[in-house]
Amino acid sequence: MPLRAEIVSVGTELLLGQIVDTNAAYLSRALSEIGITLHRRSTVGDNMERLLAALNEAMASADVVLTIGGLGPTMDDITRDGLAAALKDPLQLDENIADRLSDFFRQRNVPLVKSNLRQAMAPVYGRIIDNPNGTAPGLLFENLGRIGIALPGPPNEFIPMVDNHVIPYLSAKTGGVGAIRSLVLRVAGVGESLVEEMVKDLMLDSNPTVAPYAKVGEVHLRITARADTPEQAAELILDRATLVRARLGTSIYGENDTPIEGAVVELLRQRRETVSTAESCTGGLVAQRITDISGSSEVFPGGVVVYSNTAKTDLAGVPAETIARVGAVSQEVAGSLANGVRERFNSTYGIGITGIAGPTGGSPEKPVGLVYLAVSGADGCEVEKANYIGSRSIIRQRASQTALNMLRLRMLLTV
Amino acid sequence: MPLRAEIVSVGTELLLGQIVDTNAAYLSRALSEIGITLHRRSTVGDNMERLLAALNEAMASADVVLTIGGLGPTMDDITRDGLAAALKDPLQLDENIADRLSDFFRQRNVPLVKSNLRQAMAPVYGRIIDNPNGTAPGLLFENLGRIGIALPGPPNEFIPMVDNHVIPYLSAKTGGVGAIRSLVLRVAGVGESLVEEMVKDLMLDSNPTVAPYAKVGEVHLRITARADTPEQAAELILDRATLVRARLGTSIYGENDTPIEGAVVELLRQRRETVSTAESCTGGLVAQRITDISGSSEVFPGGVVVYSNTAKTDLAGVPAETIARVGAVSQEVAGSLANGVRERFNSTYGIGITGIAGPTGGSPEKPVGLVYLAVSGADGCEVEKANYIGSRSIIRQRASQTALNMLRLRMLLTV
Repeated sequence: MPLRAEIVSVGTELLLGQIVDTNAAYLSRALSEIGITLHRRSTVGDNMERLLAALNEAMASADVVLTIGGLGPTMDDITRDGLAAALKDPLQLDENIADRLSDFFRQRNVPLVKSNLRQAMAPVYGRIIDNPNGTAPGLLFENLGRIGIALPGPPNEFIPMVDNHVIPYLSAKTGGVGAIRSLVLRVAGVGESLVEEMVKDLMLDSNPTVAPYAKVGEVHLRITARADTPEQAAELILDRATLVRARLGTSIYGENDTPIEGAVVELLRQRRETVSTAESCTGGLVAQRITDISGSSEVFPGGVVVYSNTAKTDLAGVPAETIARVGAVSQEVAGSLANGVRERFNSTYGIGITGIAGPTGGSPEKPVGLVYLAVSGADGCEVEKANYIGSRSIIRQRASQTALNMLRLRMLLTV
Repeated sequence: MPLRAEIVSVGTELLLGQIVDTNAAYLSRALSEIGITLHRRSTVGDNMERLLAALNEAMASADVVLTIGGLGPTMDDITRDGLAAALKDPLQLDENIADRLSDFFRQRNVPLVKSNLRQAMAPVYGRIIDNPNGTAPGLLFENLGRIGIALPGPPNEFIPMVDNHVIPYLSAKTGGVGAIRSLVLRVAGVGESLVEEMVKDLMLDSNPTVAPYAKVGEVHLRITARADTPEQAAELILDRATLVRARLGTSIYGENDTPIEGAVVELLRQRRETVSTAESCTGGLVAQRITDISGSSEVFPGGVVVYSNTAKTDLAGVPAETIARVGAVSQEVAGSLANGVRERFNSTYGIGITGIAGPTGGSPEKPVGLVYLAVSGADGCEVEKANYIGSRSIIRQRASQTALNMLRLRMLLTV
C-alpha cells in the first residue's frame, strides 16, 4: 500500500532559528528511501492551538503523520497530548514505563517529580516505541485510519528510533513495495541554463525525474526514480544516467558526493602524474582543496602562494620585467606562474592563477572578478580569462573550480 | 505595527531530505531579532498546487509570507508564479533586469536562452530585491494587505539579501518596537566546558541570556537581550559583554561574523607587520583563510605548501638531515618550516605546520591527529604539539585555527 506522509516539527527554538532542523531532513530522506512520498513539512512552536491546526491539516492529506520534538516532561512539551487529541487515541498511564522511570531516577538519586510521569503515558489503541537513549519513549497512535508517530527531538535519541523502529515498521506497512533511488551527476564548465537546454525533454518525464541544481561553479543533475523494488529503481536510474551522460559527455566529472578535487586526484593517481600550484588571488584555495582529498600526497608535491610580486618572481620564476610590462593580473603572468611552478616542483602539470578577488583593487581595465587561469604541461600551456561576479569568497571559489576543471579536461584530452 | 510572519521553503530536494534547510533557520533567527513572531514554517516540493495551498494557509494568518527557493530559470522554479497568483500581484518583464541579464551572458560568451528571461519578471505592485551574488533577483509582492517576499535558495545569495534588504525593510515596517538584540563573542583556545564554567552564573539570567555554542576550534558565546527599544537592548548587551570580557580576557578574539583570520589580519595591519606560511598537513588552508580577508595583501606576501619532503627542503629550507633523523612530523621540522619561510619571505612572522591529517598514515608513535605547529618571530620560535580527533577535514580545520590563534596571542604579548 503506498503511503503518504507529513512531518510536523514542534519547538519554539526552531521558529526562533536557534537550532537547525536536521532531524526533519534525516527523516525525510529515510522515508523517501522506502518509497514514502512526503507532500509537506511544517514547523510549529510549543503552542497547542497551532500544533492541532498543523496536525489536522496534515491528517487531511496524509496517512502517516510524524512529529519531531515536544516529548519532554515539562509543560512546554505538548506533542503527546496534541497527537492523542488529533487522532482521538487517548493516553493512559503505562505501569511498566512508570516503573522504569522510577528506577531510572532512583539510580541517579534524583527525586521523581510528578511531571516526569507524563513520559509514562501511552496511547490506548497504539503503543510506545522504545528509546534506549533517553527517558521519553516514542509513541505510535492508531485510529481514524491514520497513524501518528511521535519522536523525541534530541538527535542521538531520534536517529536510532527512526532507523530501528519507524522505518522497519512503515516499510512493512507499505508491503516493502515502492522504492525511490536517486543519483546526482556533477557537471562542471557548463551553466545551469545550458545544462537544462540539453536535458529539458527529460525534465518533463515523471519517472525517472531529472532536475538541475545550480551550485558555486557547477551544476548538479539529480535523477530520481520510483519503482516497486530498489533493483528496478536502480535500473531506471542507470538507463537515464546513460542517456544524460551521452548528451553531456566530459562535462560530467563525477557522481553524488565526489567534489571535483576528488575527481582530479583520482585521475592523477590513475595516470601516475602530479600537479603543483602557484596561486595569487585564490591564496592557496586550490592547494587546500586538492590536499583535502585523502591520498593526495601521491599526486601533489606542493605549491606556492605568491601574493606579492617579489614572491611571484622569487618562488615561481615570473620575470620581474613581465610584471612591470603587463601587470601581475595578465595572461602572461598566469602562464609564467604555471610554467614556473611546474618546473620548480618537477611535476607533470602546473596550475597558475592570478586575478582580482575584490572587493577593492579593481579598475575599468581590470575589474574585480577578472581572473587568468593557466594549466601547463609537457605539451604547452593553456590560459583562460574569466570574469566572475560575486563576493570575494565566491570569486575565489569559482576560480579554483575553473582551474581544477581545466586540469581535468586537459588530462581527459591527453592520452 | 507588530507583524506576523510565516516562511514557506520550496524545493523537492528538501522533502527528499537531500539538503538541510539552514536558510529557514537563518531567516527565523533574523526575524526574531527584530521582534517579528513566526507562527509556522512550511516546506513544499516543486509542485504548484501544494505551493499555492501553503501560501494561502500562510496568508490567512500572517501579514508577511517569505519564501525560500524556487527562483531559478528552470521550469521547476515555480515560486515566482505561485506568489504572484496567491497575492494577485501579477508579473511583468522588467526591461532593466532583462538588459542586465543579457549583458551578463554576453560578457561570459554564453548564449541567453529564453528561460533565463523568467528571472527578469517583476511584480506590478511590488518591486525586485537586488541580488549582487546571482542572476535571480528577489521579489517583493504587495497586495491584499499582505507582503510576499521571495528569496533565492543558494545561501551565498540568500543571506546577504536577508541582512541587507529584508531585515531593514521589515524592521522599518514594525516601527522598530519590541526589540531583540544579540551579540556573539568569539572565543579561541578554551574549550566549551571551561567557557561554561566561567560564565555559568550568567547563563541562569533570563534577560540578557548568555549561551555557549561549540564550533570547530572555537566557542561562540551568544548574548541576547530584549527591551522596548533597540537602544535599551543594546545597552543591556553592552553591560553583559563587558562582564564576560572581564572574565575571558584575551581568549575573546572578536565579535559576530569576524573569523579569527580577520582578527589576525587586522592586528597585523595595525602593527604594520607581515606573516608567511609553510604548511604540510593543512595544505594551504592557513594561507587560504588569511587571503580570504580583503586587504590581506598588505600583511601576507605569500606562503608555501610543502607536501613532499623535497619541497620542505627546497622551499622552506628544512635540512634533509633533520627530516631523516626525526621525521617530517616533528617539533624540529615545524620550527624549521616557520623559521625557513619567515626568512624566505622576509616577513615579521612565519607559521610552520606539519602533522598527520589522516585517515591513513598514522602509527602508534605518530597517530592520526598529531600536529606540530610553530610560530617564528624576531624573538624566537614557539612550537606546540596537538592531538586532534575527528575527520581529515576537522583535523586540518583545528590545526589552522590553533596556528592562527598562536600568532594572535604572540602579537598581543609582543608590544
